Amino acid sequence: MKAIDWTGHSLRLLDQTKLPEEIVWVECRTYDEVATAIRQMIVRGAPAIGAAAAYALVLAAQACTSKEAEVCWQELQAAADVLRATRPTAVNLAWALQRMLRAGEGLAAAALAECLETEANTIAEEDVKINRTLGQFGAELVPDGGRVLTHCNAGALATVGYGTALGVIRAAVEQGKRVEVFADETRPYLQGSRLTTFELMQDNIPVTLITDSMAGWLMASGGVDLVIVGADRVARNGDVANKIGTYTLAVLAKEHQIPFYVACPLSTLDLTLATGQEIIIEEREAKEITHIRDIRLAPAGARVWNPAFDVTPHQLVTAFITEKGLIYPPFTPAFERLFQ
Amino acid sequence: MKAIDWTGHSLRLLDQTKLPEEIVWVECRTYDEVATAIRQMIVRGAPAIGAAAAYALVLAAQACTSKEAEVCWQELQAAADVLRATRPTAVNLAWALQRMLRAGEGLAAAALAECLETEANTIAEEDVKINRTLGQFGAELVPDGGRVLTHCNAGALATVGYGTALGVIRAAVEQGKRVEVFADETRPYLQGSRLTTFELMQDNIPVTLITDSMAGWLMASGGVDLVIVGADRVARNGDVANKIGTYTLAVLAKEHQIPFYVACPLSTLDLTLATGQEIIIEEREAKEITHIRDIRLAPAGARVWNPAFDVTPHQLVTAFITEKGLIYPPFTPAFERLFQ
Repeated sequence: MKAIDWTGHSLRLLDQTKLPEEIVWVECRTYDEVATAIRQMIVRGAPAIGAAAAYALVLAAQACTSKEAEVCWQELQAAADVLRATRPTAVNLAWALQRMLRAGEGLAAAALAECLETEANTIAEEDVKINRTLGQFGAELVPDGGRVLTHCNAGALATVGYGTALGVIRAAVEQGKRVEVFADETRPYLQGSRLTTFELMQDNIPVTLITDSMAGWLMASGGVDLVIVGADRVARNGDVANKIGTYTLAVLAKEHQIPFYVACPLSTLDLTLATGQEIIIEEREAKEITHIRDIRLAPAGARVWNPAFDVTPHQLVTAFITEKGLIYPPFTPAFERLFQ
Repeated sequence: MKAIDWTGHSLRLLDQTKLPEEIVWVECRTYDEVATAIRQMIVRGAPAIGAAAAYALVLAAQACTSKEAEVCWQELQAAADVLRATRPTAVNLAWALQRMLRAGEGLAAAALAECLETEANTIAEEDVKINRTLGQFGAELVPDGGRVLTHCNAGALATVGYGTALGVIRAAVEQGKRVEVFADETRPYLQGSRLTTFELMQDNIPVTLITDSMAGWLMASGGVDLVIVGADRVARNGDVANKIGTYTLAVLAKEHQIPFYVACPLSTLDLTLATGQEIIIEEREAKEITHIRDIRLAPAGARVWNPAFDVTPHQLVTAFITEKGLIYPPFTPAFERLFQ
């Protein structure tokens, strides 16, 4: 399963607003089309939008090969600004853009496009490798016969491939363990029902769909051994911004003494932020809650609050699963050591 | 707002599967049609299905006025059995049926229908009075400017009128208090978005709709002063069966030291059950989660778990709001005293 496909002159994205009913690919030929696709969540998931933004900069560079280096560089930075503003919470987006700009710095316009393409390909390839590696580390935490609850989609569709939370599950299955997954449907965008069940069913990994409101009762009924989620941004102290509803799962896990793991690449860490309180939480339009396609679910004019993410305090996180291994509390010194 | 209307020879029900988009009344002329309406959730809410079942027995009695008393009585009991089996969790259904059968016991077929009609009308009238009374008691708990989180719909639409949890809010508003309500959308049936926002907007009570997964983050953000929910069945120790997701809210309320109140008439108490573990939890069909009308939200063949209710242990309940006043722990002796 792959949701991002670079053709050399365009970025093809598997339209995640239409899954699982329709398999539609959207072809982006300009950085602006990629920006729109990120905004509309045609591509979503922190690592995936990072990679998509990297390729968007390649498109921007390809469009200015005949221009002066300085003009081209200004256009590239303007493109990066537009892309960075599409979604504020996931740090991988800003991380990938910064890495791309660094790779291209000081190059002539002719060399720029090629150099950026190489860097974007590296980011994409590394993402899959990282996920496989963190999957191996995380698989140790999954017992044979383990029942894993996950939220949103931190799978192949949210990354360049293999997935973070679902990568851990895939790795455990590849090790021959029997694993049963419970997927929160994840309102309002339904990444759980539309994407996670789809991905796991394609891989023949047993998955049961529940509504977000059922997670507590499932835990109380003894149905969950561990929780694994992804992350959109992690602060220096280990506070985690992730899809709205993650915080509720963490509180429930604590109440039921169930381990709560966050699987993410180190690019999700934002050491510039001391705590999660500094993370900007994107609020999205009301229609995501009041409608499914054209069907109205709430009265016209209903007031809505629609934060796309929440912040789980580090005290509720049992460990982080990263490509450098499992990271247990206290998180701040552990994170700082990794970046030294 | 009224969802149940007895015409003297039929029961008209406001079709709650079609709200808020369409105002459609369904007319039931036989007890069997009422049973189907309860099963399909055209009428829902513990007190409302109790009253509907009572009127269904009137229809059954009216259909057998020309028969021998014994035959009629057998038919009535068969009708009660069918009605009782429509939904297993809410006790008000069984309570209303038992009360009706007691009222009709030993009467001739001719007198039976009239007697049962009087009893059903009494049940319906009492329900509204009880809700107004418990609303008064509960309103004491709502501070001026209070922000109340509620789940599902425990309003006029769930009762014969005024509501339980929403009755408390209405009473606080009638006392001149400013109240702001947050309504969980309540997947899968969306009673919160479809019914609670509709009811409150009709009454000009400020309401903000959120997904169930946002309640935790709303509490963490300091947005909730108290939680008020209804109940479908309460065991002798105070364990509460209510709409799936209630338990999660109770755990979250505990984590944030927010009071968690259950508003219900005493007919919701089931003193025959020592604890909530004995309560049968209805599981409903997968389609409620995998579809919205004809739109598929999950892959074909996705496995689903769909319990309609959960059980909140009594330790998480701050107090019950009943027509006999507020009931604080320990609940067992308090409940037993009320029934002596």
